Amino acid sequence: MYTIAYLEEFTRKVFLKMGCSPEDAAAIADVFIAAELRGLPSHGMIRIKDYFQLWQAGRINVKPQVRIVHESPSTAVVDGDGAIGMVAATKSMHIAIEKAREAGTGWVSTMNSNHFGIAGYYSMLALPHDMIGICMTIANPLVAPTFSVSRMLGTNPIAVAVPAGKHPPFVADFSTTPLARGKLAVAAKKGEKVPLGYVQDADGVPSDDPDIITRGGSMVTLGGTREQGSHKGYCLSAIVDIFSAVLSGAGFGPFCPPSVAYLPLKEEKEGKGTGHFFGAMRIDAFQKPEEFKSKMDRWIETFRAASPARGQDRVLIPGDPERENEERIAREGVNVLAPVQKEMKEVADVMGLEFRMD
Amino acid sequence: MYTIAYLEEFTRKVFLKMGCSPEDAAAIADVFIAAELRGLPSHGMIRIKDYFQLWQAGRINVKPQVRIVHESPSTAVVDGDGAIGMVAATKSMHIAIEKAREAGTGWVSTMNSNHFGIAGYYSMLALPHDMIGICMTIANPLVAPTFSVSRMLGTNPIAVAVPAGKHPPFVADFSTTPLARGKLAVAAKKGEKVPLGYVQDADGVPSDDPDIITRGGSMVTLGGTREQGSHKGYCLSAIVDIFSAVLSGAGFGPFCPPSVAYLPLKEEKEGKGTGHFFGAMRIDAFQKPEEFKSKMDRWIETFRAASPARGQDRVLIPGDPERENEERIAREGVNVLAPVQKEMKEVADVMGLEFRMD
Repeated sequence: MYTIAYLEEFTRKVFLKMGCSPEDAAAIADVFIAAELRGLPSHGMIRIKDYFQLWQAGRINVKPQVRIVHESPSTAVVDGDGAIGMVAATKSMHIAIEKAREAGTGWVSTMNSNHFGIAGYYSMLALPHDMIGICMTIANPLVAPTFSVSRMLGTNPIAVAVPAGKHPPFVADFSTTPLARGKLAVAAKKGEKVPLGYVQDADGVPSDDPDIITRGGSMVTLGGTREQGSHKGYCLSAIVDIFSAVLSGAGFGPFCPPSVAYLPLKEEKEGKGTGHFFGAMRIDAFQKPEEFKSKMDRWIETFRAASPARGQDRVLIPGDPERENEERIAREGVNVLAPVQKEMKEVADVMGLEFRMD
Repeated sequence: MYTIAYLEEFTRKVFLKMGCSPEDAAAIADVFIAAELRGLPSHGMIRIKDYFQLWQAGRINVKPQVRIVHESPSTAVVDGDGAIGMVAATKSMHIAIEKAREAGTGWVSTMNSNHFGIAGYYSMLALPHDMIGICMTIANPLVAPTFSVSRMLGTNPIAVAVPAGKHPPFVADFSTTPLARGKLAVAAKKGEKVPLGYVQDADGVPSDDPDIITRGGSMVTLGGTREQGSHKGYCLSAIVDIFSAVLSGAGFGPFCPPSVAYLPLKEEKEGKGTGHFFGAMRIDAFQKPEEFKSKMDRWIETFRAASPARGQDRVLIPGDPERENEERIAREGVNVLAPVQKEMKEVADVMGLEFRMD
């Protein structure tokens, strides 16, 4: 078990050693820690080695000049300058928030970035400003459109955070596939089968083998099959792709650069780096914040009071499971899997840092 | 078979007779016709009788003062004044477009409206202005959140229209349930079963009976089951609900007023009428429109060139099926089902209008 403080300091030091500024290293560590706290370890410590290897391969810029290259009162396109995703994304979301202060809403499409961790983190940056926060990103192309076997899209998550009054905020953060990539990888590592509806083989036939995507298979979009609405998941994923990558000038769809160094950069290029999309909507650009928050409280109470299906004890509000994880993990500490500890130790050794294995 | 011109004129006359202004009646008829043309008859002529009965019941205002009640440079809240949905929605989308002209983007949350037809129509109003159009709406509560049997949400569609260059635009328009309500109603009328995954019974057990929703059952959210990601569909539907109804002050979730006169208005009130959400993003608030459109052309070409799964001949771009319907139906005419013709004739007789049955 590790304390949050220990992992935060270690992560910060890793990125400081890579050459990041103290401010950037702290911003990066904050996102890593948020992932562990919210119970999403697939975006936490397990990624330290990935970023370390991208850095070794010269595929990330640790001294980026993240800057606005085009703007209007409510919009901006941001060039991430090859930054670590967390750096480009945190700055982009703050630009969206600043735009919203003046124009009521702010919308930022960011190119030339990299994998940024959990989308929910950036959407939640809007909450203390009494704003609704929105965040989307493209990712490694592993997902096939409906009727296709080509890996054209990422798991392309969408996050929306909405402030409430006396209740905790509404925070939706979900990939536009039935299952997140990380959970599939876990099943593959354990040698387990997965239910039909998550992946298909190279011919497009549903498969229960989570490892099929390394053998010409692909993930499918939310809905799973055409009959169950996978074309709607395809629409959603395509919207994330267009807002994040076409609007910004990043590498859309199959041209999204891989977020791990062991996958080669594509020869055929289209656009610059990874793309994200951020939005901030000031509540008082629509109505009095107190009124809105008290309505959100009633919304939350209404949905919490919905009748559970047989065999269920309660109906959840988006954000409940992650918040409950956060409370528990902040109290109990973080359990880092042994192989991940080993990777962290290897990184620490190369960089001349201390890392205590459990 | 009817010509578009014939149905357009008939629809316009029905709403003129109700007391709508010529401008409003034309706007309403345009949305009805768009639904028929795009191959979505569930939102076309079949709804004439519904609106007629709402009018008879005094539940729609045919002389509305649709107006902005709160605004910022990029946002507005619109009070639909009890208007027919098409009137409030068309005006709201034009406000979003005007806001975008000045601020780069425009976002409108509308309350006190009614059922507005197809969401895709309003998103497409942005296209001639070189803008991306967005539209969402809440609807009759028939859908249960994940783990619940309570009917808390509508089929809550999302539409996004994106201009391209030499190719037709990208137009996604989809409900956040596996199947649209209209298609379920058709199966029920024909006495057919539906695949598991669309509806559940009063205990939350998956059902193949499309009529189960009249006997305590409910529709489920996109994803179908928790294992296949229905919690993501629940998040999406909840986001539509919050943006359309909480931000505007409409009746959120279970408080959305029914869009048909045979369902009574709820006693417990929360908010005013039906809510929608509209967005317009000016392309040149992000980049040069010519560059963006040529990138969208490459996006469309890239996805069209994806390999079809075994047994499929092609991969579709969102908007393809509806556009192909439009081309065919504009040429061949509209086939209106006999029972719908009968309803239209009944409305015509009461209103003293001509209607020729096929």
